[in-house]
Amino acid sequence: MHTIVESGSSAPRPGAAGRARVAVAGATGYTGQELLRILARHPAVELTAAMSSGTTAARKLPALARLWTGEVTPLAPDVLRAADVVFLALPDAAAAEIAPALVDAGVRVVDLSGAFRLANAEDRARWYPDTRRLPDGVVYGLTELERPRVAAARLVANPGCYPTAALLALVPLAQAGLLAPDTDIVIDAKSGVSGAGKTPSERTHFSECHGSLSAYGVFGHRHGVEIEQAVAAAGGRHAITFVPHLAPLDRGILATIYVRLTRGADEAQVARVLEQAYVAAPFVRLTGSSLPEIKHVAHTNFCDIGWRVDPSGRAVLVSVIDNLLKGASGQAVQNLNVMLGVDERTGLW
Amino acid sequence: MHTIVESGSSAPRPGAAGRARVAVAGATGYTGQELLRILARHPAVELTAAMSSGTTAARKLPALARLWTGEVTPLAPDVLRAADVVFLALPDAAAAEIAPALVDAGVRVVDLSGAFRLANAEDRARWYPDTRRLPDGVVYGLTELERPRVAAARLVANPGCYPTAALLALVPLAQAGLLAPDTDIVIDAKSGVSGAGKTPSERTHFSECHGSLSAYGVFGHRHGVEIEQAVAAAGGRHAITFVPHLAPLDRGILATIYVRLTRGADEAQVARVLEQAYVAAPFVRLTGSSLPEIKHVAHTNFCDIGWRVDPSGRAVLVSVIDNLLKGASGQAVQNLNVMLGVDERTGLW
Amino acid sequence: MHTIVESGSSAPRPGAAGRARVAVAGATGYTGQELLRILARHPAVELTAAMSSGTTAARKLPALARLWTGEVTPLAPDVLRAADVVFLALPDAAAAEIAPALVDAGVRVVDLSGAFRLANAEDRARWYPDTRRLPDGVVYGLTELERPRVAAARLVANPGCYPTAALLALVPLAQAGLLAPDTDIVIDAKSGVSGAGKTPSERTHFSECHGSLSAYGVFGHRHGVEIEQAVAAAGGRHAITFVPHLAPLDRGILATIYVRLTRGADEAQVARVLEQAYVAAPFVRLTGSSLPEIKHVAHTNFCDIGWRVDPSGRAVLVSVIDNLLKGASGQAVQNLNVMLGVDERTGLW
Amino acid sequence: MHTIVESGSSAPRPGAAGRARVAVAGATGYTGQELLRILARHPAVELTAAMSSGTTAARKLPALARLWTGEVTPLAPDVLRAADVVFLALPDAAAAEIAPALVDAGVRVVDLSGAFRLANAEDRARWYPDTRRLPDGVVYGLTELERPRVAAARLVANPGCYPTAALLALVPLAQAGLLAPDTDIVIDAKSGVSGAGKTPSERTHFSECHGSLSAYGVFGHRHGVEIEQAVAAAGGRHAITFVPHLAPLDRGILATIYVRLTRGADEAQVARVLEQAYVAAPFVRLTGSSLPEIKHVAHTNFCDIGWRVDPSGRAVLVSVIDNLLKGASGQAVQNLNVMLGVDERTGLW
Repeated sequence: MHTIVESGSSAPRPGAAGRARVAVAGATGYTGQELLRILARHPAVELTAAMSSGTTAARKLPALARLWTGEVTPLAPDVLRAADVVFLALPDAAAAEIAPALVDAGVRVVDLSGAFRLANAEDRARWYPDTRRLPDGVVYGLTELERPRVAAARLVANPGCYPTAALLALVPLAQAGLLAPDTDIVIDAKSGVSGAGKTPSERTHFSECHGSLSAYGVFGHRHGVEIEQAVAAAGGRHAITFVPHLAPLDRGILATIYVRLTRGADEAQVARVLEQAYVAAPFVRLTGSSLPEIKHVAHTNFCDIGWRVDPSGRAVLVSVIDNLLKGASGQAVQNLNVMLGVDERTGLW
Repeated sequence: MHTIVESGSSAPRPGAAGRARVAVAGATGYTGQELLRILARHPAVELTAAMSSGTTAARKLPALARLWTGEVTPLAPDVLRAADVVFLALPDAAAAEIAPALVDAGVRVVDLSGAFRLANAEDRARWYPDTRRLPDGVVYGLTELERPRVAAARLVANPGCYPTAALLALVPLAQAGLLAPDTDIVIDAKSGVSGAGKTPSERTHFSECHGSLSAYGVFGHRHGVEIEQAVAAAGGRHAITFVPHLAPLDRGILATIYVRLTRGADEAQVARVLEQAYVAAPFVRLTGSSLPEIKHVAHTNFCDIGWRVDPSGRAVLVSVIDNLLKGASGQAVQNLNVMLGVDERTGLW
Repeated sequence: MHTIVESGSSAPRPGAAGRARVAVAGATGYTGQELLRILARHPAVELTAAMSSGTTAARKLPALARLWTGEVTPLAPDVLRAADVVFLALPDAAAAEIAPALVDAGVRVVDLSGAFRLANAEDRARWYPDTRRLPDGVVYGLTELERPRVAAARLVANPGCYPTAALLALVPLAQAGLLAPDTDIVIDAKSGVSGAGKTPSERTHFSECHGSLSAYGVFGHRHGVEIEQAVAAAGGRHAITFVPHLAPLDRGILATIYVRLTRGADEAQVARVLEQAYVAAPFVRLTGSSLPEIKHVAHTNFCDIGWRVDPSGRAVLVSVIDNLLKGASGQAVQNLNVMLGVDERTGLW
Repeated sequence: MHTIVESGSSAPRPGAAGRARVAVAGATGYTGQELLRILARHPAVELTAAMSSGTTAARKLPALARLWTGEVTPLAPDVLRAADVVFLALPDAAAAEIAPALVDAGVRVVDLSGAFRLANAEDRARWYPDTRRLPDGVVYGLTELERPRVAAARLVANPGCYPTAALLALVPLAQAGLLAPDTDIVIDAKSGVSGAGKTPSERTHFSECHGSLSAYGVFGHRHGVEIEQAVAAAGGRHAITFVPHLAPLDRGILATIYVRLTRGADEAQVARVLEQAYVAAPFVRLTGSSLPEIKHVAHTNFCDIGWRVDPSGRAVLVSVIDNLLKGASGQAVQNLNVMLGVDERTGLW
């Protein structure tokens, strides 16, 4: 069994057999089910509770038959305090309400909602008005770029699916000063329908999606400001146009990113910067000029990144992830692993 | 009030420019929209009203922009009486309530619901309890096999999508005595998701259907009794097991039909019987031993039928249609054409 | 019957019943089959020949059963000369070889290949090296923007699928001076797999496409130069980055177009310019800020265009077409209609 | 040369760190890649070679980046002899040629082809003419029903994908005498396109499959005789009509099975028989009257089985698997686990 490494001020208290006691709130949505699937087999974890606000009585999840023998129970915030780590896969407002009290009670939280992702109070007031305060120890959990801070975090704000795909490609370039200042960045992202959540709607009706494709949220998607925040923090000065699209597939995001490099920068330089950034990142695979496809990352926690640069300094980067894994539950567990001090790949390989 | 001229020998009372005045009740579902799309361009029809019970104010349908300039208005049964022919694309209960009064008022009706499909009162009481009576002049509108009666019908009960696919293959064989009496018939049918209707539900969620396949309604789908009724009427004596499946495509049904032929019957005999049945049927295409696929009938009013027979007399027939056209709105217009005495293909070719 | 309007020096000679005699070379690919399907029912056309270079003996196309009774025959350039108008749905090299002689012989040609699309000799040498010369009377056939010239054309170079979607949105803005000079334009286009042609390959294998998405041809797709040529001709001065993607659907293109407007231009101004450009265009539908989807144009000849502009002058336009119809065979017939002087919608509505 | 220890009672000669040395021949097809993916992370296995007959030089598989660091090398039968166990994911003829010599050399073989599945020489001569002889120690590897024999096998003939789905539902019923003798059985099976293999063809072209569905191999698919063999061996006397269909999804098989039960047998009895058969089978999940869907087994080694029985004794069973895992590579590794005497779930959970 893994001994739990002391990480930060609030290391989890070991559960049975030295394993961290972990609870999931919001267990019946797509990300919640992925969490259960992974955590039920995670060797450093004891899955102690799975709750759903839509559940009035304890019940088993047929989709998890033989994978997890526990029951999903009604949401009971008090019971969550008995856990070492709590995953919140709840709507933003519910997470905004529950999380601070858990943190205050000494429980470490990995929040998959957007409630705590934005550091700027003004942005937060606009996009997440239910978030009244940020608890101490909040860390934006883009694992590969924030490992030391995640290790010590009390609340990990797990990144959005689109920002994960975009930022893993963009942030190292911004940090290295490779993006020409004051140029426009376009992020054209295509997502599978599971990203729209499990609640049935006209938008997620099979017959509306099948054989179709559509853009949405133009100039008004809150993942845009999440991306801008991180690029700016990395030193970038850009107007970022982010347009998400719904594509007729279930799982996966492909983000095509259009940037202008600083004068003289070329394909090899992009390669060097990214290789250096991810030399020790087991889940980031660089494909160079051979551009990546969703098929190779679906059902995995990988982020594959490829790129092309033309002689005039225009660069196109393509970044792909599984939106439910690296874009949500997989990265959440990856963050858990960092918090617990175990191999980052545990339960995800 | 419009008296309906005797059909067959004579034409309906002409609307503007000699065209029949046609109204659609239930215009916003998938079958309703297909009706509008076809009728708006139908040269023998003046589309006078399109109504929806879910609409509270008149509005245009964006999906029909430039195809039809009219507005969908709230359901107003009284206004329907001004039409020569009314299409009902409503839930069973609503059709059961509205249709008899229309027929009594001399309006001819093509009903796409199941309310009037079953002749046997006991079956009707079980499967369509809201249908309190059958108006005079009800005809089961499997066009190719009922042309003369459809021509004179006051109410056409437009067949279900699954029965259309199954019966066009089975009825001629039953009528010709080619099906071994007292043998089992299995109808394994696969449908696109549009057949489940436009209302969002877990079952029609893209992520639940994509990459999946499921059976439903085993021993309990009302299309089963509809099929049994027609096969029995054709002289067949069989236990029919009908199992529908939901397949990850939008439009189309493929029915695989397993029968035992009478002793000595072979592939050539099946061919002769079907060729004779459909020699004058523009929408039935016989593909022989080269089995048909949904792709070739999607977005058309065709029914393609193929078959294979083994030396022991087992036969497999495959019948494919577009569920929204030949399985619903297309066949409804085909019936209209027969009622109006115009070329059966008008508006559908 | 339609009298054929004299258009240009080389009006077609009327065929039987005053209809134009039309032949199709390259009848078995996806665009060829669409051509046959449309032309077989076109009231102003007599379909006199359908040829395929891959065919060694005359044969019927099962997919067209009952829609067209003719046979596909081996490619015979000499026989094509008997037609009034010839559609070439051939590979670039074959079109480059056959077309000039046809034009010289007085046959009007609609060429669906890329062989004659580029006016600039240098570009042509790079992207279409087999095109040795441009015959007289070549017109780039973006119908809505070139009607008078198409009417008189001897050879219509039918636009590529991606350029059609992109240019119908971009050209009016460029012509009106709404695009800020010397700014970058990004065109991120997503296409269904039928755009990759009918020849099986790893890239078109169902299992490689299903559930996946990929970019291709970055900085190296010849449709990019075709777009640049037309935008420049409209007065635009821009570096255009065009990246096509393969999406898991059969038919349709969605192009998301990112531009910077000239100072002060806003959403209303974009609307005015596009409305004016397409006031008399039956196949272009402007959806304004309600962005269009592929579903509404699949299996039609429509191009739907929507847009959003932010206060800083960034604009996102979305343009959708069916790649086989408006992006190929539909626009080809639309061009034929203009050449014949018949209603532009004939055979396409 | 490695002598194979007697299996069952004892374990294979250990490789490095006590692990079995395993080689894969046919590593680049869909089943081969799944094998590599599983075996590379299998704790009881050392993956010593991966070969492909289509490879002329050693190369890495991009799809397996970071999952397996080895190279695929040209097929070298001699080198295979250095392994303890060899997986053959080759065409039937190649497997028929290579396997006997390996067995003779003391190497244990798991063959995923059909070459050694049929015990009856006449059937084999018809369906697998390249199989000249069956080596000693051949076992038909339907794991759940053949564990003791698999444990001792020298060559495991890994079942076909369709037979796996059908037989796990049928065999226990046949063995228990629940199937009415001399009645017809219909097996209507629907498969994802990966089942057709990786070689591009018209049949696997995305545009031919998407939005379509087709039956194939009626009365002529060799999986039919494989099913008949196993049902007969279980005591069943039935004419079995097996019709496979290609469905527009990538992975998964759903088999709908129509049988007549012996007089008096009911749903509860079916449940008892199946529950007893699979009480100790970790990969078979019985869903009772709640019929299973492909979605829940895709990307897993599970086989989910549900059923419904009507009062007259007609029964419909639905069995679903992932065709590449439980229907091929997953079951192959499950058989390996039984051969090695390790937990059946190793590497598959």
